Amino acid sequence: MRLESIAEKWLSERYPDMVRWRRHLHQHPELSFREKDTSHWIASRLEEMGCEVRRNVGGHGLIATIKGALPGPVVALRADIDALPIQDEKECEYASKVPGVMHACGHDGHTAAMLAVAGFYHHNRELLAGERRLLFQPAEEVTPGGAIEMIKDGALDGVDVIYGVHLWTPLPYGKAATRPGPFMSSADEFVIEIEGKGGHGGLPHGTIDAIVAGSALVQGVQSIVSRNVNPLHPAVVTIGSFQAGTTNNVIAERCQLKGTVRAFDEGTRFMIHDRLEAFVTHTCEMYGAKYEYHMRIGYPPVVNDETEARRFFNVAGPIFGAEQAVEAEAITVAEDFSYYLNQKPGVFMFVGAGNPEAGAIYSHHHPKFDIDERAMLHSARLLVGMAEGYASDSIGRQ
Amino acid sequence: MRLESIAEKWLSERYPDMVRWRRHLHQHPELSFREKDTSHWIASRLEEMGCEVRRNVGGHGLIATIKGALPGPVVALRADIDALPIQDEKECEYASKVPGVMHACGHDGHTAAMLAVAGFYHHNRELLAGERRLLFQPAEEVTPGGAIEMIKDGALDGVDVIYGVHLWTPLPYGKAATRPGPFMSSADEFVIEIEGKGGHGGLPHGTIDAIVAGSALVQGVQSIVSRNVNPLHPAVVTIGSFQAGTTNNVIAERCQLKGTVRAFDEGTRFMIHDRLEAFVTHTCEMYGAKYEYHMRIGYPPVVNDETEARRFFNVAGPIFGAEQAVEAEAITVAEDFSYYLNQKPGVFMFVGAGNPEAGAIYSHHHPKFDIDERAMLHSARLLVGMAEGYASDSIGRQ
Amino acid sequence: MRLESIAEKWLSERYPDMVRWRRHLHQHPELSFREKDTSHWIASRLEEMGCEVRRNVGGHGLIATIKGALPGPVVALRADIDALPIQDEKECEYASKVPGVMHACGHDGHTAAMLAVAGFYHHNRELLAGERRLLFQPAEEVTPGGAIEMIKDGALDGVDVIYGVHLWTPLPYGKAATRPGPFMSSADEFVIEIEGKGGHGGLPHGTIDAIVAGSALVQGVQSIVSRNVNPLHPAVVTIGSFQAGTTNNVIAERCQLKGTVRAFDEGTRFMIHDRLEAFVTHTCEMYGAKYEYHMRIGYPPVVNDETEARRFFNVAGPIFGAEQAVEAEAITVAEDFSYYLNQKPGVFMFVGAGNPEAGAIYSHHHPKFDIDERAMLHSARLLVGMAEGYASDSIGRQ
Amino acid sequence: MRLESIAEKWLSERYPDMVRWRRHLHQHPELSFREKDTSHWIASRLEEMGCEVRRNVGGHGLIATIKGALPGPVVALRADIDALPIQDEKECEYASKVPGVMHACGHDGHTAAMLAVAGFYHHNRELLAGERRLLFQPAEEVTPGGAIEMIKDGALDGVDVIYGVHLWTPLPYGKAATRPGPFMSSADEFVIEIEGKGGHGGLPHGTIDAIVAGSALVQGVQSIVSRNVNPLHPAVVTIGSFQAGTTNNVIAERCQLKGTVRAFDEGTRFMIHDRLEAFVTHTCEMYGAKYEYHMRIGYPPVVNDETEARRFFNVAGPIFGAEQAVEAEAITVAEDFSYYLNQKPGVFMFVGAGNPEAGAIYSHHHPKFDIDERAMLHSARLLVGMAEGYASDSIGRQ
Repeated sequence: MRLESIAEKWLSERYPDMVRWRRHLHQHPELSFREKDTSHWIASRLEEMGCEVRRNVGGHGLIATIKGALPGPVVALRADIDALPIQDEKECEYASKVPGVMHACGHDGHTAAMLAVAGFYHHNRELLAGERRLLFQPAEEVTPGGAIEMIKDGALDGVDVIYGVHLWTPLPYGKAATRPGPFMSSADEFVIEIEGKGGHGGLPHGTIDAIVAGSALVQGVQSIVSRNVNPLHPAVVTIGSFQAGTTNNVIAERCQLKGTVRAFDEGTRFMIHDRLEAFVTHTCEMYGAKYEYHMRIGYPPVVNDETEARRFFNVAGPIFGAEQAVEAEAITVAEDFSYYLNQKPGVFMFVGAGNPEAGAIYSHHHPKFDIDERAMLHSARLLVGMAEGYASDSIGRQ
Repeated sequence: MRLESIAEKWLSERYPDMVRWRRHLHQHPELSFREKDTSHWIASRLEEMGCEVRRNVGGHGLIATIKGALPGPVVALRADIDALPIQDEKECEYASKVPGVMHACGHDGHTAAMLAVAGFYHHNRELLAGERRLLFQPAEEVTPGGAIEMIKDGALDGVDVIYGVHLWTPLPYGKAATRPGPFMSSADEFVIEIEGKGGHGGLPHGTIDAIVAGSALVQGVQSIVSRNVNPLHPAVVTIGSFQAGTTNNVIAERCQLKGTVRAFDEGTRFMIHDRLEAFVTHTCEMYGAKYEYHMRIGYPPVVNDETEARRFFNVAGPIFGAEQAVEAEAITVAEDFSYYLNQKPGVFMFVGAGNPEAGAIYSHHHPKFDIDERAMLHSARLLVGMAEGYASDSIGRQ
Repeated sequence: MRLESIAEKWLSERYPDMVRWRRHLHQHPELSFREKDTSHWIASRLEEMGCEVRRNVGGHGLIATIKGALPGPVVALRADIDALPIQDEKECEYASKVPGVMHACGHDGHTAAMLAVAGFYHHNRELLAGERRLLFQPAEEVTPGGAIEMIKDGALDGVDVIYGVHLWTPLPYGKAATRPGPFMSSADEFVIEIEGKGGHGGLPHGTIDAIVAGSALVQGVQSIVSRNVNPLHPAVVTIGSFQAGTTNNVIAERCQLKGTVRAFDEGTRFMIHDRLEAFVTHTCEMYGAKYEYHMRIGYPPVVNDETEARRFFNVAGPIFGAEQAVEAEAITVAEDFSYYLNQKPGVFMFVGAGNPEAGAIYSHHHPKFDIDERAMLHSARLLVGMAEGYASDSIGRQ
Repeated sequence: MRLESIAEKWLSERYPDMVRWRRHLHQHPELSFREKDTSHWIASRLEEMGCEVRRNVGGHGLIATIKGALPGPVVALRADIDALPIQDEKECEYASKVPGVMHACGHDGHTAAMLAVAGFYHHNRELLAGERRLLFQPAEEVTPGGAIEMIKDGALDGVDVIYGVHLWTPLPYGKAATRPGPFMSSADEFVIEIEGKGGHGGLPHGTIDAIVAGSALVQGVQSIVSRNVNPLHPAVVTIGSFQAGTTNNVIAERCQLKGTVRAFDEGTRFMIHDRLEAFVTHTCEMYGAKYEYHMRIGYPPVVNDETEARRFFNVAGPIFGAEQAVEAEAITVAEDFSYYLNQKPGVFMFVGAGNPEAGAIYSHHHPKFDIDERAMLHSARLLVGMAEGYASDSIGRQ
């Protein structure tokens, strides 16, 4: 595969562009669903390179398509482009210029690396077998996310496989990681409002004590994970907020509970939803309380294709070094890349971006979050490596 | 008993004074422990009548002493004089002139009636057997209350028996009520602070979930009343406030519970305190949480003397009519009259002051609280009746 | 009252008969609903005296009717006649001759005293005003009890008032006691069968853990007494048996709970039944378990008439001495005398029968239970005293 | 690898021996720690073949050692030899002849296959590189198991790697499976005795209700898995038995809970032990109850070496077919093979033995349990394949 063999050199030479692009984006972040200028700027860069660009895909999304001279598969690569409502506290020249908005999750780096990949493919399209479709997706940070609308708008039509990367500061620069099967959890959020009947603290009869009902619910809900969940299909139910009553000697009329459900497979996830609703319904009816129960559906779990995850180890070994491409533990964090994987084979990967020497020591969403920018080059090489690995196999199989 | 026979007429003639006095106090209410002007005003009225007054008894308290020409017992009668931090919402000419302060519990009426009683005894001191000691007590509404300090300052020295009245709007005008034994509960208040260890809602391991610990505590505490309390010695444990966490997906680090304990005997009361502390201590240690637990001791239960309660039925029958002097249910409301009864025999009584026609339809501590003022006359007559009934028996026994 | 004035002497002279009768019955006890020979023996004694006897009233019940020569009210007096399935362990000449059956509750004494009362009234019927109806009731010890059927068979027809006595060893010989209002509790029993779905102890998913459901139910039920019951209307809910599963590593499929409900008023009693059913229903449905719930209705609470209870103090004072007629605490023990009191005014009373010198130191239902037999004379005098006190008042009112 | 290439033919020819051996063992089962005759019989077979045998290793264990003519590693292979206290209900000529004892787990097949492996290595020892050490281990079914004593007696001295197989009927004949890392759980068992203070069901005060304490403990313990366990490190806590009280109206004095703890890593396992003890201690102290808590330590988790597990897929592919060598899910069943893996690299593997046509449809430990005997040939080939694969790599690395 000649493309793979030239990717390292070509992309390395464009590394200064990646840094420049990333820093531009870093200074001009836009919130989820509002990435109008970002989208326009990316499109301009792509068009400057000569790429075919489709704008306003499912909102502020973009698709860059590079069609190779040779026959081959359609491989999709995805970058997300939105920023977060966080005040940038870094002291550096490329800090955010937008008050209260910041690329605190590394999407600027994803975009910059993907622009370099676009350039690579466009420049080498004579050697390219099949089509490479680069998705610049908005609104990854806020449910319902940007992936659904891009898919509805045709982003996956005809696609054979899809790859995505997240720059990841908990993973040291120089490493890459993923895992076959369940990788990132779903994350749904619920609110429960219990309405009992308040009264004098010394006269409990005739009241419906919302605190007693709420406490019984918290206790009962523990048994979902301890008894209903298959211990090998991990899941979490957390009630993070319990607000009821105001003072010592008045029986609380209302109790509000807020929580989250995390799971790594859809069966477990919706079983938990059902069990939770049963606990809410019956606990409240048991105590004679009224209730409202609202579950806000978040992203599904990211479940990597087994074969494509194995490809990662083959591809990443040469790029990162044999010991540096590691199997990740599953994590209870959500990503809307899951929607692509629900429809197409593929794999989502972490590229190490943490480095104390580069100041990249803060967790994602921290006001001082930063990355070791060289991880962008790793990211670009990994994406090209995966795509061309797939293409080789695909052509070989034919 | 000649005194009793003339009391009705004498007091009835002073009813316009009672109304005037009560309305003056109603317009000039003072908060607990701050009854300086009220105390001064009462002392002036007493001195105008010719009574011997001791000022600044245990704070802003007053004692009026009337010594009879005949030998006999020392009978104490008590009125409380403080007001509440409530904005008066009544529309009438005698509404409170002090913003945010109001006689919303009827202590103005207690004081006015007691002034009439003072006048009666002073005027008829030649017929009086023994001493009548009238206590004008401050700070009934706020723990630790005014009774303790007055007692320390000698208010009960030499006293044989003590009586007190509360004008009571839940009881219709024309009725009076009390009960032998436990009548009004103690009321202690507690605050529990649980400190666990917060964390990401999807990563429970390593955290200490303060909501789970707090809920287990609420559940466990129910068993104090259901299992530890003698079912015939009533008590209440209420947790009225449960505040923990802020959002869906963060495990709560802290949980604050506030509640109250009510009981009608000291054994049950302090057994509950011990059990509650055991539940707090062990629940928190069980979950690995730190805690602070503070119990604020309120008033003891009001336990009426059996003999003096029986006297009430004998005395009140002629005043209110046979069917109108009724046995009250015990109630889970506290009064610092309990401190007097812990040292001397006596009885605390309710005099009906509710009357829709008089606008006296609001519960105590309501911004529109008012009384049927005629209940003051009932109150004065009942106090004199009890005192002279006791004196007669006392002399008869000798 | 001429009858009352002669009762003491007349009954005292018959005391040897009471002892003889009681010891005969003690040696020939019969179980509840099987009192055939006992009933026949009592009827023979009554007929020997010349009383009019109605046999087989509501089963093995008897009614002896004595009609006075003078006009007056119908006063019913009740004795119960059944024994218990307990092996007599006393060493004395009058020990039970029936293996495994024993008068371990004092009903033999009740019957013997009532026979003396029958003799008294029959002998003095010329002085008697109105009718005295003596009920010898079977089956007090076993629900549904014997009272219901006797009432259905007319035992209360035309009755004005009813009195009953229990010889009581926890109360020392020489005392008598009762209380106005709620005196003895109801006692209902329930069984709950929970059917979950068993499974391997290491594979909880797909099972329904009957132990977790049962435990949640036990926890929840504590809140009935702590929150739903009026603290001044005492009640008890006890779960006395929890049987589930067999071994360490198999998830329990079934859980059986047994318990009892005690209350002193019908409102509280049936509120608890409703709450308990709500907890069973919703807890089981919440966990996905099936259930059966059976409440066996026992006797209602014994609620004494206020006026008749006050009569007790007037009547018992002269018989027992002023300090010896005391107000009892309510107790959580059941009696089917309650059925009579649900229809007619009256009072149920305890007569002290405990005396270490007489070996009467064991609690009721103990294999060595015995009474101070002189309490039978007290009992007879108290019953006559109450009846004639009522008759005097009744005639006086006319 | 000349040895591997001849293994299939050689072992296939000995298949009739395997069947004969297995059926002999099946008819003469012996319980754990009592495998005297079994051990003697195996030793005789090995000696007939000419193998060097060491008897009475750590009890009834045996070690057969085959030293190759060529230099190479020491590879241990393990079979277990004990049977279960189950009555054989199969109807076939080779059913157990020992009442109440049965090879209901397939250890007879393990032994028979291992005998064939012994013959193969002895016969071909001129081609063999290094040493093959075949462990015939007693007492796998009963803790503390037979592995510990064999290890103490030197079974692993000088060993480089160890492999073991379990014939597995839930896996269809024709397949093989294992997984890297945690594969089979630990299994510890606990008993909790709670001693409260019994009493009359209507008089809860003064008692310590063991059912309320036990239920609170069951509820609390649910939070260990739901909150303390890392969701990605699966574990189970089951309380399988709850026995307390006897009847409706007596408060239970005692409560006995029995349960099991399962985990896949030692950190989680002992964290759970600690948490469980904290819950027992503090729940009982909270309610004022005494307690005894006993944890019986079972086998550790079986954690396969990552490298050796990967070897399985390489080795098993050619033997079973590429699609037939699958990644197993972890299972909550325990095996004392874990002790070997705690000291040496290696892998424990399942060989499919289920086949409806062969009557092999029952789960392990079922009275009608049987295997598709051809799985023994698979097992022998897999063990040889793993050993020789390791030897090749080992020699290649040198």
